[in-house]
Amino acid sequence: MRNVQQKLSIARGEKPAEMLFKNANLINVLSGEIYPAHVAVEDGRVVGMGEYEAHHVIDLKGAYLAPSLIDGHFHVESSMLTMPEFARAVVPHGTGAVVIDPHEYANVLGLDGIRYVLESSKNLPVDFFIMLPSCVPATAFETAGARLTADDLKLMIADERIAGVAELMNYPGVYLGDENELGKIRAGKGKNIDGHAPGLRGHNLNAYVLAGVNSDHESTELAEAREKLRLGMHILLREGSTERNLATLVPLINGHNTANCSFATDDKLAGDLVSEGHIDHCVRKAIQAGMAPIAALQIATISTARHYRLRNMGAIAPRFWADFIVFDDLQNLAVRQTYKKGILVAEDGKYLAPKSAIVPQPRSTMNLRYRAPIDFQVPLDHATKIRVIEIVPNQIVTRQLLEPPRTENGLVVADVARDILKLVVVERHHATGNVGVGFVRGFKLKTGALGSTVAHDAHNVVVVGTNDQDILSTIENLKEMRGGQVAVANGEVKAMLPLPIAGLVSDRPLDEVIQLIAVLNNAARALGCDLDAPFMTLSFLSLSPIPELKLTDLGLIDAVHMRATSLFV
Amino acid sequence: MRNVQQKLSIARGEKPAEMLFKNANLINVLSGEIYPAHVAVEDGRVVGMGEYEAHHVIDLKGAYLAPSLIDGHFHVESSMLTMPEFARAVVPHGTGAVVIDPHEYANVLGLDGIRYVLESSKNLPVDFFIMLPSCVPATAFETAGARLTADDLKLMIADERIAGVAELMNYPGVYLGDENELGKIRAGKGKNIDGHAPGLRGHNLNAYVLAGVNSDHESTELAEAREKLRLGMHILLREGSTERNLATLVPLINGHNTANCSFATDDKLAGDLVSEGHIDHCVRKAIQAGMAPIAALQIATISTARHYRLRNMGAIAPRFWADFIVFDDLQNLAVRQTYKKGILVAEDGKYLAPKSAIVPQPRSTMNLRYRAPIDFQVPLDHATKIRVIEIVPNQIVTRQLLEPPRTENGLVVADVARDILKLVVVERHHATGNVGVGFVRGFKLKTGALGSTVAHDAHNVVVVGTNDQDILSTIENLKEMRGGQVAVANGEVKAMLPLPIAGLVSDRPLDEVIQLIAVLNNAARALGCDLDAPFMTLSFLSLSPIPELKLTDLGLIDAVHMRATSLFV
Repeated sequence: MRNVQQKLSIARGEKPAEMLFKNANLINVLSGEIYPAHVAVEDGRVVGMGEYEAHHVIDLKGAYLAPSLIDGHFHVESSMLTMPEFARAVVPHGTGAVVIDPHEYANVLGLDGIRYVLESSKNLPVDFFIMLPSCVPATAFETAGARLTADDLKLMIADERIAGVAELMNYPGVYLGDENELGKIRAGKGKNIDGHAPGLRGHNLNAYVLAGVNSDHESTELAEAREKLRLGMHILLREGSTERNLATLVPLINGHNTANCSFATDDKLAGDLVSEGHIDHCVRKAIQAGMAPIAALQIATISTARHYRLRNMGAIAPRFWADFIVFDDLQNLAVRQTYKKGILVAEDGKYLAPKSAIVPQPRSTMNLRYRAPIDFQVPLDHATKIRVIEIVPNQIVTRQLLEPPRTENGLVVADVARDILKLVVVERHHATGNVGVGFVRGFKLKTGALGSTVAHDAHNVVVVGTNDQDILSTIENLKEMRGGQVAVANGEVKAMLPLPIAGLVSDRPLDEVIQLIAVLNNAARALGCDLDAPFMTLSFLSLSPIPELKLTDLGLIDAVHMRATSLFV
Repeated sequence: MRNVQQKLSIARGEKPAEMLFKNANLINVLSGEIYPAHVAVEDGRVVGMGEYEAHHVIDLKGAYLAPSLIDGHFHVESSMLTMPEFARAVVPHGTGAVVIDPHEYANVLGLDGIRYVLESSKNLPVDFFIMLPSCVPATAFETAGARLTADDLKLMIADERIAGVAELMNYPGVYLGDENELGKIRAGKGKNIDGHAPGLRGHNLNAYVLAGVNSDHESTELAEAREKLRLGMHILLREGSTERNLATLVPLINGHNTANCSFATDDKLAGDLVSEGHIDHCVRKAIQAGMAPIAALQIATISTARHYRLRNMGAIAPRFWADFIVFDDLQNLAVRQTYKKGILVAEDGKYLAPKSAIVPQPRSTMNLRYRAPIDFQVPLDHATKIRVIEIVPNQIVTRQLLEPPRTENGLVVADVARDILKLVVVERHHATGNVGVGFVRGFKLKTGALGSTVAHDAHNVVVVGTNDQDILSTIENLKEMRGGQVAVANGEVKAMLPLPIAGLVSDRPLDEVIQLIAVLNNAARALGCDLDAPFMTLSFLSLSPIPELKLTDLGLIDAVHMRATSLFV
């Protein structure tokens, strides 16, 4: 703590403080009480509670004063925003700190991606703490941009902004004692080890916890969450854009376990962050579902700060950072003001922080090699049926269909009439020349193609199209814009969202990104697609760990039995 | 964790575990629930909860199974027992871990004392975690055996059994920003910093917390404890042999703050530990005072383990140590069995742990130099009154009396008729030759003398006597037994408790120590003393920070104004 003597003399009441937050209705998450109080702040920290003189008095007139809110698990790439623009989205909602897993950055850029996140998240009105991605690449059935081993994690674990090792998604590997996975846990050196074990119960869950995993955010059922909590896992109650488990899990909280729970969003779109909110939305929803407001606010602040050991955060008391939110109604928690280290950084929905320094973008990540059109063509086999990926709307699972192929000139081609479109995945990290080709039902495009360089988890180029010309045009456009998402028809770009940062994130301001996404989705609709989120659906078609059938740069993957499979049956 | 693969396969249910605790009524302090469960244990750790096979099944038939209890702050020297004998006293009461401040050892032996405690507390059925003493010496008004600076603390802070820096008793020094005190806080390197601030409130308390102190165990009033808790201090609810604050402080606990409280005993005599209990007594008393049993047990286990970062302790869940207690009644919590790392170490009050290895005793600490009788003599001054220390029974404060001296042959001597006895303090660490002489009222000895090498906080030799011959004999006997406590009359030892370990601790077994103390107190009574605890009273007469009048090897100390003062007025 700098200027200790100055701060101590202010605390002793000998000198006026910089600021006094007067007549607050203080949410004290440490004593578990709400009561009238005054809070003195100097040089970004709370220095005293009680009667103090100050140069600048902020009379809260009985408004609630609470610690800023903390997200326990978030993939910032899901917002497609740079760190400063993400801050612009969430600070007006009262967010003061976020524990992030830069899983997508790491899959594309490796340690460079993590360093970029560390660098570009400095000096913002939100503090970012990083969990080191543990699943890069996610599986052996795709080509990612990097491979992170336990030794790589050890290189960075000591950094004070690294809070631990991120979600160990290969949970069978962990509970079966795979030495690579156990090595990643040991690399955590006593910092937190996040879990990810959807539906895991019973004996294998015990083994997963025994191995050293100490949190989970994947519970979708109350009994599952209760079992995990009883075994000692810190439970993150998740409420993101698509995964919404909060209301189901609220009954987990009794009077004696709030210390072991956090809120998390996991993945949330920029537009949802702005319109619906961030952790403030979780708090509101929890209170509506019957949780005591003080408990909901403890979960949103001190419980998360303590679990991830975020020093001097998550409470209002001497030595803590003056990260505050002000609001008027305890039931609906509409954040009126957000303070970061004593500075007003948002008010009435308006972001007030100064423009942050520009950080150099990471290297280009569009290293493609392919032969067009031959790489996208599928010569007819003697087989009578092909495997087709069937989309399940709003879910990341798919189904496998067996359909007779439509052919033209000895090639299997898209069949718009039956909604069987061509799906192409082109490796983009190492110019390997890997191209996977398959077919998909569910997009309902009548013409053109949609493409994305966001494609979990390896983030290769994925394109769905009605014809090879538009597929090629889509790929060329994505290359030209250094990654992104695009809708093309008859060789013409209908809408595009450039994502030049790792092919994952926009370099544009928040409002513009939200608008570009809306235009892009409208363009997809104009081409005939009726999915709620066509590009998000597209981005999950390469996610090889999730059943039933997926396509990566290495070809079709039977994700039930975890093995490569053939197009023709 | 050793034998990981073996443990994981047991957790997965593939092999039988070493032990299964079946049909437990599990106190789950993590989920805040009590419910029927089975707990599998292998190699000292919990490996699974649920249906498991085991080589050895312990059917608890519905008895309660809880984590072993933890004391958050204790001076083990107050028991006058070695670490193994202290374990013998508390393990049958369910204690599994103790956070100790070896303040007395350090005042006598410095870093060697802390090393001795670390060494002699290994491989016992209680785990000891050490807070590094921060007040050695306690004040400048006495000669202690050692001086520990911030640099000394830094030498040891990284040890994994060092939990932080012990109570910063010089609380004005801290809140006034004394650089020595702040240096000790910085030496903590992010580990815990214990406080000690009786009665401190308001602005100065804010400054004390701001400086980095994060606990307190000195609250004697509810409002004081509440103010400290609100400011972010971890509150230790103390219930020792003499300081008994628990019942007063129980109303502090609401449904939302158990994570921020612990139980502590601070100082507790061997006899009280055996007969009344240890932390089990705190839990019983808290429940009787209206605390929910689950909350009391959380405070006694996980809250303390987390605050002091005792890894894998304080709960029953996979990876945690199998430190358990078994009991049948949730209201009176009579511990029936205690397990340490899965081994039964106490049952029905009987200690079952094997005899521990003998650790070499630290060096002799009786380095006296004095000239008898001249050093004990007080030549008459022209003044008409002398300052006399008046004992306040059962308190560590004293009062100052002004009395006419009784004289013999030009010397001021004890006056048994008026209960004004001679008090002598002889420096024992460095053979400085320092001898302080004064007078005290309250012991009511008719003959003989009482002496002790336990004399807070410098632990010099302190003797109260009716005549110089017996005072000398007392000192010689103490020297011969390498420290201890003794009652002498007419040159004859009436009873003695040798404390050869630093002059503070007995090398005898628990039962013998308790018996020797009883005999010693009876001997003091036979000499006329009617105090409840004559040697404890004697041991506090040198404690210079506590008002009003004290005697150290440097002479009489005015402990109100913190300055040396004269015998004659």
